[in-house]
Amino acid sequence: MVTIKDIADRLGIAPSTVSKGLNDANDISPELKKLVLDTSIEMGYVTKKMKKGTRKRLCIFIENMQYRNPTDFGFDIILGFKQAAVRNNWEVTITPMTPMLQLRDPYDRYMVKNNFHGGFLIGFALKDPWMTQLSTTTIPTVLFDNYIIKNPNVAYVGTDSFEGIDMAIDHLTELGHTKIALLNGSLNSMVTNNRYDAYITSMRNHKLKVDENLIAHGYYVEDSAKYHLPSLIAHGATAIICGNDLLAVGAIKECEHLEIKVPQELSIIGFDNLPIAEEISPALTTIGQDRINLGRCSYSTLFLLIDKVSASKSLLRPQLIVRDTTCKII
Amino acid sequence: MVTIKDIADRLGIAPSTVSKGLNDANDISPELKKLVLDTSIEMGYVTKKMKKGTRKRLCIFIENMQYRNPTDFGFDIILGFKQAAVRNNWEVTITPMTPMLQLRDPYDRYMVKNNFHGGFLIGFALKDPWMTQLSTTTIPTVLFDNYIIKNPNVAYVGTDSFEGIDMAIDHLTELGHTKIALLNGSLNSMVTNNRYDAYITSMRNHKLKVDENLIAHGYYVEDSAKYHLPSLIAHGATAIICGNDLLAVGAIKECEHLEIKVPQELSIIGFDNLPIAEEISPALTTIGQDRINLGRCSYSTLFLLIDKVSASKSLLRPQLIVRDTTCKII
Repeated sequence: MVTIKDIADRLGIAPSTVSKGLNDANDISPELKKLVLDTSIEMGYVTKKMKKGTRKRLCIFIENMQYRNPTDFGFDIILGFKQAAVRNNWEVTITPMTPMLQLRDPYDRYMVKNNFHGGFLIGFALKDPWMTQLSTTTIPTVLFDNYIIKNPNVAYVGTDSFEGIDMAIDHLTELGHTKIALLNGSLNSMVTNNRYDAYITSMRNHKLKVDENLIAHGYYVEDSAKYHLPSLIAHGATAIICGNDLLAVGAIKECEHLEIKVPQELSIIGFDNLPIAEEISPALTTIGQDRINLGRCSYSTLFLLIDKVSASKSLLRPQLIVRDTTCKII
Repeated sequence: MVTIKDIADRLGIAPSTVSKGLNDANDISPELKKLVLDTSIEMGYVTKKMKKGTRKRLCIFIENMQYRNPTDFGFDIILGFKQAAVRNNWEVTITPMTPMLQLRDPYDRYMVKNNFHGGFLIGFALKDPWMTQLSTTTIPTVLFDNYIIKNPNVAYVGTDSFEGIDMAIDHLTELGHTKIALLNGSLNSMVTNNRYDAYITSMRNHKLKVDENLIAHGYYVEDSAKYHLPSLIAHGATAIICGNDLLAVGAIKECEHLEIKVPQELSIIGFDNLPIAEEISPALTTIGQDRINLGRCSYSTLFLLIDKVSASKSLLRPQLIVRDTTCKII
């Protein structure tokens, strides 16, 4: 179990200072107080006050996404959300979700029964039972990477795919590429559609020809890359933008198998900036999503909804992280 | 000058309770405290603590927009922003701006010199000197209805035009209209472009023909309507969606002049829900922007930027307000 001393050691301060931070004392700076609180949440420390519970409760529901390890996509999103929420005296519950569980209780009843003031839903699929109920829910609800039209109680938070794909195409055209392919996920999620639209729009804005043979739709898993890569290369692609990092990692591995040199013969760009992007060789150039801040922004958007502000969409900036899988066309 | 008694009278509570609210006493509820503070700001009451000033300062810059009277478009946006900011102990300065003043000091220097931690810019034009500087500013800045690409320190807040126009076309098609015209502002602002794109997209989604003769671009003033209305009607329009309420008011007046009955012979929809929409006869059906909450959302987005969260776009939901200028096609 995490103790106050563990937090003190991690931050390099006295345990008494940690206590002050956790107990909202007046003689330490607000910045340090925030840091102590953030770190204690990150390390899983639970104060007596948190144990007692408060009247203010939020729930994070997560499905179809790994989140238990720091390398998982969902981990930092949940951490950022919790840090921002706990700082504002909310109690946050994390509930793994399945379609079966959703059939047991309609969303609104589940929320009211459990005394939750708002929900944050991550990784839900369009066909999930709760998703259709969100069109009419009266519970303040934030969806990560999904959008519900015309319900003022539901908002969408995500990264601006348009700017991300545009930055990738900026980068590749500066390196001399014109035959830029898109290896995307399957076209049944909002995010995949957005990245596809962004690719078409940005290619046109860069005065590049859109060639249907240079667009492939697979799945967001490593293995999917190998089925599409040969055709993209046969049609002359010198660079490939992948819909996520897993597809990009699959593409790098398949290139190794096919004896295609990355980046000399093929430039590859991912999306997400998962820890694996840094670890793989060559290290992956990718469009980064700031997951901690996506979590924070999701809390702040949920708080707007609870405060009767009908937030609809909140997008964060992506960031292009240039590593070793892109180079000048030779 | 506003006194504590004025605030007490307005709220129907004792002056001593107002004092408690302003002085952050523990024996009144947080909700009442918030209400007292919100009302005192709305009425222009200044506490001694506010007079003394704090270290935390924000500035609202406003240009090309009326804001001094409650009926002005900018009034509620500023009010909502101030209410949210003051609740979080920020001092807010309101500064009317002109292109000339912008030439005197570059934006960043002005902000640093005056010790402002963040800026909220309303009504700026694309050609303003400060607008080009915003591409590289390091000062957390929120723009109302304007967007700067690829700078993580600048965010855009506005109402979702796509959903608004789509709601208007939903409403008109339910009433049997197919010849739906768009009378927009001039195509040199982001918002006008968005409303134009939204119209095209939504018409197509409703399987309606887009007829270039049913699209006109004027200016966002009453007078502009009369130059475009006759041609739209000559080309068969039975309903007109206007880019803002002023254009819609101009259209109603011009119909009176041309002896065209509204809504029996022509349905008209505005955008914004200004006070005049309710006052004019017949009362205007319009797409409402929640201006108080746009102000609150702008504060919360600015706070994210100050907190190093690279917010990019925050959109609020519009609301279709059906009054007397739309009816079933006869």
